[in-house]
Amino acid sequence: MEFPSRTIEQAVQELSRLPGVGKKTALRLAMHLLRRPETESLNLSEAIKALRLNTRYCTTCHNISDEVLCNLCASLKRDKSVICVVEDTRDVMALENTHQYNGLYHVLGGIIHPLEGISPAQLNIGSLLQRCEDPEVKELIFAFSASMEGETTAFYISRKINRPDLRISSIAKGIPVGSELEFTDEITLARSLLNRIAYSTAPAINQPG
Amino acid sequence: MEFPSRTIEQAVQELSRLPGVGKKTALRLAMHLLRRPETESLNLSEAIKALRLNTRYCTTCHNISDEVLCNLCASLKRDKSVICVVEDTRDVMALENTHQYNGLYHVLGGIIHPLEGISPAQLNIGSLLQRCEDPEVKELIFAFSASMEGETTAFYISRKINRPDLRISSIAKGIPVGSELEFTDEITLARSLLNRIAYSTAPAINQPG
Repeated sequence: MEFPSRTIEQAVQELSRLPGVGKKTALRLAMHLLRRPETESLNLSEAIKALRLNTRYCTTCHNISDEVLCNLCASLKRDKSVICVVEDTRDVMALENTHQYNGLYHVLGGIIHPLEGISPAQLNIGSLLQRCEDPEVKELIFAFSASMEGETTAFYISRKINRPDLRISSIAKGIPVGSELEFTDEITLARSLLNRIAYSTAPAINQPG
Repeated sequence: MEFPSRTIEQAVQELSRLPGVGKKTALRLAMHLLRRPETESLNLSEAIKALRLNTRYCTTCHNISDEVLCNLCASLKRDKSVICVVEDTRDVMALENTHQYNGLYHVLGGIIHPLEGISPAQLNIGSLLQRCEDPEVKELIFAFSASMEGETTAFYISRKINRPDLRISSIAKGIPVGSELEFTDEITLARSLLNRIAYSTAPAINQPG
């Protein structure tokens, strides 16, 4: 692609580094910014800079936070006996949106992914193991994506924990609510059979096999 | 959506102003930036700022340019008797990529679009009419998108020009090269029949009806 000016070429190059943004989309974004009021571009530029320079992480759960301790860790209303282990902040937000969980979180900052070169040493696993040593903690819930990497990470962490009294569970894999049985893929269906739960009118907590 | 920190909320808000970027995508972009090296975010921030503050426009054709006159207008190799009128810089780049056009351009900076409140007064039409007064200019080519707005803009400009000797043409609307006739929509097919051109082995220039 030949650009009419260096400035726009630079902008397209930087924008196209974003995930899901190719050269054409980047050019569309750049043209959009040029058409909009100047303040909009400057605000965006400022927000991106601030995002990288001012973002801090909770010293306990490694979630993004404005303070030393995040709102969730600092809250007196949360159940400190359960820790839900997730990949990143988006997962915390997704789980919080369910309004079904009142425990604490631990953000790993990624997932074990040998192909992408992400090893356990790069994740916040050490601090999780440390938190698990606290006898107040009674349960650990793995809430990872249903992928090979998610399974690997859960397996790795579970092997590192030396507390027989600590309950370790994983969120259920099964058919999504509202989905049609006949259109569910075989692996999900097999998994949902394998992990079947005792039928009751009240929701039950499934214990991992 | 509840955010764990003000900084990330601000970034998501600004990113989601971009076209085609919703809150979820904006959050994904923000998380991506946080995972990548710091310089990447700072470069992006800088490029966006520079884009808005340093971008200049060619005083003749209004294309984006680093200089007072853009490369195309300043070039001695271009045919100064033809002006191709386009909506924005992306169209210039698309036409240049064909390597089939050697004339000059005129970038309107938009298209007449009453629904979006874009009137002729907001576009670079005045300067185009002025350029057309130069007797050196022999032909004007409209290269707009094949939409109602494109047709309106072409019609508006053609009515404003008072030079019977100026040839005015528009890029051909017809079936795209490589497409199957049976899958072409009726309007395009009707248009390609109406604008049929004399068959010859050499490419011919179609005169607008």
